[in-house]
Amino acid sequence: MSRFCVGIDVGGTTVKLGIFENNGQLMRKWEIPTRKEHNGCNILTDVAVSIRRTLDEMGIKFSEVGGAGMGVPGPVARSGYVPRCVNLGWGECYPARDLSLMLDGLPVLCANDANIAALGEMWQGGGKGYDDIVMITLGTGVGGGVVIDQKIVAGRHGLAGEIGHTHVRDDETEYCNCGSRGCLEQVASATGIVREAKLFMASSGKESALREFDEKTLTAKDVIDTAKAGDELAMEVVECVCYYLGRSLAQLALTIDPEIFVIGGGVSKAGQFLIDIIQKYYVQYETLSENRPLIGLAKLGNDAGIYGAARMVLD
Amino acid sequence: MSRFCVGIDVGGTTVKLGIFENNGQLMRKWEIPTRKEHNGCNILTDVAVSIRRTLDEMGIKFSEVGGAGMGVPGPVARSGYVPRCVNLGWGECYPARDLSLMLDGLPVLCANDANIAALGEMWQGGGKGYDDIVMITLGTGVGGGVVIDQKIVAGRHGLAGEIGHTHVRDDETEYCNCGSRGCLEQVASATGIVREAKLFMASSGKESALREFDEKTLTAKDVIDTAKAGDELAMEVVECVCYYLGRSLAQLALTIDPEIFVIGGGVSKAGQFLIDIIQKYYVQYETLSENRPLIGLAKLGNDAGIYGAARMVLD
Repeated sequence: MSRFCVGIDVGGTTVKLGIFENNGQLMRKWEIPTRKEHNGCNILTDVAVSIRRTLDEMGIKFSEVGGAGMGVPGPVARSGYVPRCVNLGWGECYPARDLSLMLDGLPVLCANDANIAALGEMWQGGGKGYDDIVMITLGTGVGGGVVIDQKIVAGRHGLAGEIGHTHVRDDETEYCNCGSRGCLEQVASATGIVREAKLFMASSGKESALREFDEKTLTAKDVIDTAKAGDELAMEVVECVCYYLGRSLAQLALTIDPEIFVIGGGVSKAGQFLIDIIQKYYVQYETLSENRPLIGLAKLGNDAGIYGAARMVLD
Repeated sequence: MSRFCVGIDVGGTTVKLGIFENNGQLMRKWEIPTRKEHNGCNILTDVAVSIRRTLDEMGIKFSEVGGAGMGVPGPVARSGYVPRCVNLGWGECYPARDLSLMLDGLPVLCANDANIAALGEMWQGGGKGYDDIVMITLGTGVGGGVVIDQKIVAGRHGLAGEIGHTHVRDDETEYCNCGSRGCLEQVASATGIVREAKLFMASSGKESALREFDEKTLTAKDVIDTAKAGDELAMEVVECVCYYLGRSLAQLALTIDPEIFVIGGGVSKAGQFLIDIIQKYYVQYETLSENRPLIGLAKLGNDAGIYGAARMVLD
């Protein structure tokens, strides 16, 4: 009988790893650097060696481990096929199959990193106790993950959960990294919030504490903290950001209707202050029923990925 | 061994019924009137009597029938609980349980009518051969249904697939039936297309064959046929409608990423002409990958509901 499972979250700078008990208890977590040189050909070997060494140190036998789940920063087909992972230097590959070969045939599953973060939050984080959740990660970009019936909805072309690139704004003049214009990410990511603040400062004559910051180092946290402190212009920026977020959540409620939305990423550290303003706009755009998905905060921070990766292999 | 299944689609005017072989072959279909008087208390009895009589006529024994599926025009919880069905006069009820009691304990399942139509198109219609589809029905309103892994995504509050009420238009001044403003239904339903045509005629000085129609009886078909015939103003209306539809499909692709979108309802009779224009805008708003869901036409017309209802009981 297996008692343990392994969670792996491969990022562009570090690989996060965790050994879990099947009940969700994190036994040990650690990180190793992501060696991207030579098209990232050492990444999986490093992961395999590190897992073997750690299990050994912990006195856990391979026969006690049910499997390992792995999140990677790119699209993953159901077959485990990865067309490319730009941030890791990988071209076409089957990372789960390859890692399994390096771990004596241990079952390994692979999925997109934003999707496993959603699964992690469902298992032991802000979505604990719910089967259907949508996670929105407000970081440098805006990521998303959809979980229905405790399973990741990966989509057929690796596009599921790419909520940051849904169109929200008709009058957007700049292009998003994805090549489109008016994406949610352009207004609601940390980068987007700073850009928005600069636009508001440029177009408004209002006095504002925001103007005392160096524009070059202004952060989303500065903008939100200034709004929390009662600054009128900063508040207008936050209202604008939350308007688009609330509207997007309403669209998601009217499409897949999860039990709860879980908001994560650096921006979500603003906490209930942010949720309350998002909620105000959300209810304006979901008027079919007062019985609608909840909005909550993520709880696992950067560990969501290893939790979700480990959870994948428990089905 | 059961060989047959029954599909029931309860509408506000008629109940459609069908007896299917388990392989998807429709053996017989018929309709009975929906008796809405006395809070619709006769509807299920009428359905039960009619099914018994038809099976008898066809020489099919109850033991040969695996179950019956039923679509109803309103939200249905996973438990089978229906909070209300305004169009049928029903308040709180458990229609599947009640019908099962009237059919000697035959297994009966119940779901929302738009959702079963999507399942029907997946089984034997425009989505045949695919496991993940999203159906959009362009009729008096705009309905939707989401099917993932051959299963209806009903949502936790009965809101899933309510794509017609997702927000698409910021500058909308009129309210939608749902109480919100700028819903997809306001521009892309048959009613919406006619309204749009009137707005275009009022605001444009252009000559147009549309102006020869009586405004009181103008239909969406008139508008689309006039556009097909090369009328410039009518074409502008169709472009506007398809712009919002294409953008909505892109949002859905970036959320759940099905294999195919299936467009149904009266408006979809405009066929490939409409699909081509929707496609043009769709690809503008889904720029992450050229590998994206297909867009196709529904094939089962008004029978989609009985097909999907019957399909429900085959799992």
